[in-house]
Amino acid sequence: MSARRRKKGAGRQAKLAARLKAPESTAAYIDRNIPYYELLNEEELTLIEKNADTVLEEIGIEFSDFPEAVNLLRKAGANVEGERVRFPRGMCREIIQASAPAEYTQHARNSARNVVIGGDRTVLVPAYGSPFVRDLDKGRRYATIEDFENFVKLAYMSPNLHHSGGTVCEPVDIPVNKRHLDMVFSHIKYSDKPFMGSVTHPERAEDTVNMAKLVFGDAFVEENTVITSLINANSPLTFDATMLGAATVYAKHNQATMISPFLLAGAMSPVTVIGTLTQILAEALAGIAYVQLVRPGAPVIFGTFAAAVSMQSGAPTFGTPEPSLILNGAAALARRLGLPFRSGGGLCASKIPDAQAAYESANTLQASALAGVNFMLHTAGWLEGGLVMGYEKFIMDTDQAGMIATYLKGVDISEDGQAMSALREVGPGSHFLGATHTQANFEKAFYRSNVSDNNSFEQWELEGSMDAAQRANGIWKAMLNDYEKPPLDPAIEESLIDYMARRKAEFPDQEY
Amino acid sequence: MSARRRKKGAGRQAKLAARLKAPESTAAYIDRNIPYYELLNEEELTLIEKNADTVLEEIGIEFSDFPEAVNLLRKAGANVEGERVRFPRGMCREIIQASAPAEYTQHARNSARNVVIGGDRTVLVPAYGSPFVRDLDKGRRYATIEDFENFVKLAYMSPNLHHSGGTVCEPVDIPVNKRHLDMVFSHIKYSDKPFMGSVTHPERAEDTVNMAKLVFGDAFVEENTVITSLINANSPLTFDATMLGAATVYAKHNQATMISPFLLAGAMSPVTVIGTLTQILAEALAGIAYVQLVRPGAPVIFGTFAAAVSMQSGAPTFGTPEPSLILNGAAALARRLGLPFRSGGGLCASKIPDAQAAYESANTLQASALAGVNFMLHTAGWLEGGLVMGYEKFIMDTDQAGMIATYLKGVDISEDGQAMSALREVGPGSHFLGATHTQANFEKAFYRSNVSDNNSFEQWELEGSMDAAQRANGIWKAMLNDYEKPPLDPAIEESLIDYMARRKAEFPDQEY
Repeated sequence: MSARRRKKGAGRQAKLAARLKAPESTAAYIDRNIPYYELLNEEELTLIEKNADTVLEEIGIEFSDFPEAVNLLRKAGANVEGERVRFPRGMCREIIQASAPAEYTQHARNSARNVVIGGDRTVLVPAYGSPFVRDLDKGRRYATIEDFENFVKLAYMSPNLHHSGGTVCEPVDIPVNKRHLDMVFSHIKYSDKPFMGSVTHPERAEDTVNMAKLVFGDAFVEENTVITSLINANSPLTFDATMLGAATVYAKHNQATMISPFLLAGAMSPVTVIGTLTQILAEALAGIAYVQLVRPGAPVIFGTFAAAVSMQSGAPTFGTPEPSLILNGAAALARRLGLPFRSGGGLCASKIPDAQAAYESANTLQASALAGVNFMLHTAGWLEGGLVMGYEKFIMDTDQAGMIATYLKGVDISEDGQAMSALREVGPGSHFLGATHTQANFEKAFYRSNVSDNNSFEQWELEGSMDAAQRANGIWKAMLNDYEKPPLDPAIEESLIDYMARRKAEFPDQEY
Repeated sequence: MSARRRKKGAGRQAKLAARLKAPESTAAYIDRNIPYYELLNEEELTLIEKNADTVLEEIGIEFSDFPEAVNLLRKAGANVEGERVRFPRGMCREIIQASAPAEYTQHARNSARNVVIGGDRTVLVPAYGSPFVRDLDKGRRYATIEDFENFVKLAYMSPNLHHSGGTVCEPVDIPVNKRHLDMVFSHIKYSDKPFMGSVTHPERAEDTVNMAKLVFGDAFVEENTVITSLINANSPLTFDATMLGAATVYAKHNQATMISPFLLAGAMSPVTVIGTLTQILAEALAGIAYVQLVRPGAPVIFGTFAAAVSMQSGAPTFGTPEPSLILNGAAALARRLGLPFRSGGGLCASKIPDAQAAYESANTLQASALAGVNFMLHTAGWLEGGLVMGYEKFIMDTDQAGMIATYLKGVDISEDGQAMSALREVGPGSHFLGATHTQANFEKAFYRSNVSDNNSFEQWELEGSMDAAQRANGIWKAMLNDYEKPPLDPAIEESLIDYMARRKAEFPDQEY
């Protein structure tokens, strides 16, 4: 590639990045205007609900090493043997439907970015939890706090993501028992979108709430939801003390949790769609009922993370049909329960941002959007089964996120949308490019990708024959180069820094 | 990459290709078992139907340079001014619904591969019409008859494609006015799946029918459908003599045509979804009504090819939300009319089989599968807006085609599908890999991709850090290496060769 060509390419990317620079003008979340796609009929959904009640009644759920939960559930009517909790039919559903809100607002420090979670809304959120990052320049490596900050900045700048996420990657250069402080601080400092809290220890959940109080004020936090956090079940049919502890802290403070059965079908659930859905529903019912007993009315999301294992190697696979069927069914079950739903994302097994990554991600993103996911964790950046957060993948996925927003907006049936004037003006054998109606709708017509190259082969070759990953590489660099942080009251920033310093001094570093 | 590693990779690919070798065991087409996804409601669909009738009544359709059509339509009640034909409201629908079949069987020379087109069936078909081919070894180049034969062989071997297609690429090394003979011959010789006919001249359509008669017998062809052919409208609102001529030949012989508005929204149709759907319906109604007048009851498919142009450059774009909305609406309109529907495919603008190609293709493939496409032309191989047929892309897309089949099959709600025995056997905190139910369902559980790498990062690196395109490269080579052609009566092959030789001698070569 000649220097001249390279320069040309860079200029083009800077131009593209500039288009992404001002997130102000975009909607805080997606308001869906097309129907849900529901694969399962009434009979099938009822069967799953009946079977889930049988699982809860006969087999029960293990609440490991967390007597507080076991006691609360016993008092509410469950049958307890040691840590095994069995539920009379309908008990969990009744508890949930008595108090859990169908939707809630998660406040951001910039109120223009508050998100409503539930109902017909969709909130798109970065990927979560990877120990590694990858980019075209430096390849695959352990993530650092610098990477973490970079992804917070990129999510802040993307008009297609509505949320700053949580552990956008693990900053492994910071001690494992202290890094949650830096993560929460980064979300607050480098973004003004809503964020997720730490769940790796009840004390870290308390730290998250305390830091949020420094930003929003004590009273505001107790009365409103400013944190949404991910509580995974330890599938099959188990919740562990760490997750239960964090969930308890958040619920007590009226903060939102998403109770998420996390399963690789075939290993952590049965090899069938209906069997897996039965388990998902049983686990979600039990976990969510517990949260409602801790504090009736605390916001809670019905979560589902489902992939399938390869029956040959035991490796997790993504973007295949069965998990799409599962998440579609789970969305319907959540709606019937009356709760917001979390699932999906740009999931893939591929190690690199190649065609495999894209097919797999697109398959899950499409299925999630049509099923009616309200909170789509892992929308952008996910690689290698979640082990890696990819810079280029992040850019590509946010482009897909923009397409989802356009798709869910549906069609315009106004007189302008009907375009009869255009058909009358143009008529047979001509073209619409110069028509009055086309000119009037020029700006808003058609989703405009910033990653795709739609030019002629010759033009594409002239610009360096770049693949999508190479173009995405230019985009994230240009974005980080152009990043400007949102204003934050210096007194608040100071108080957060003081809090972190004080907490870090209270106990020794822990490396694992 | 060391020689040892390369060998290992090649061995793995040969193993994978072996899995694709025996198409015998797979279904001839997909029988859908999940609901259609319908974006538009009754009110919106009725509005489009009303507006399409207004277009047909007020603006009309141009039937260029083909008096036979104009005369037939005038006799049936249309208002004709020169070549402009205007239709009283409801006229086309009435003609179509009086005689057009809701579904039909296209016979293959191996009856086990007959396909039923229409209703709840989906038939997946290779891409069509590209002058170029591309592979990782030789890059982009003009297609030849050898490439054509290769794609016929690959489609024959793929268990996920149900049809041999038509112009799988243009064999530009054969004179333009004679290559249709070689194409039809290749489909018959190298595959026993059903195929498409030539539409570039009425005489070439006659040649296709004549060659089919040599295979199936004269009487069988007149009474059954053995050819399905693509008739594009010259949008907006125009049909030209070439396409009308070919459609007329096929209809007279009771062979199927798909009448396909072909449009890049913004250039060949309005910039809105509803406006474009109105035009699609008007064009399809007019073209299909004409075919039914030629021979009432001749099988016909409601076709739609819709992409959007970039309003910046005028270039066609693919995999974006608006064309997905359009094809979803068109599928519903075709169902209301009572006709089989063709649209979709693995469409993309990307020049190479990269992430852009995959995101775009997956978006359209998913939208098509859920909308209810019956005949999915362009399922596999499409690159660069249809200018290029890609070897690696073909392999990747056929893998996606397999996923579509699994998805459309839906869920198993039998006792085995419910998997309560597995949940009871395993219980909390254990895993399902060794469970009786898992072992019993081991073979049929979960779609198994032959392109995706789901191994660990370390294993993937050890095997050469290949991307999906590199793996696909190994697969198509192994497949062609293993190809064995299906048996064909030598007398039939001889008669086809004689026919071609005689026809080629009857007129001089034409180079364009």
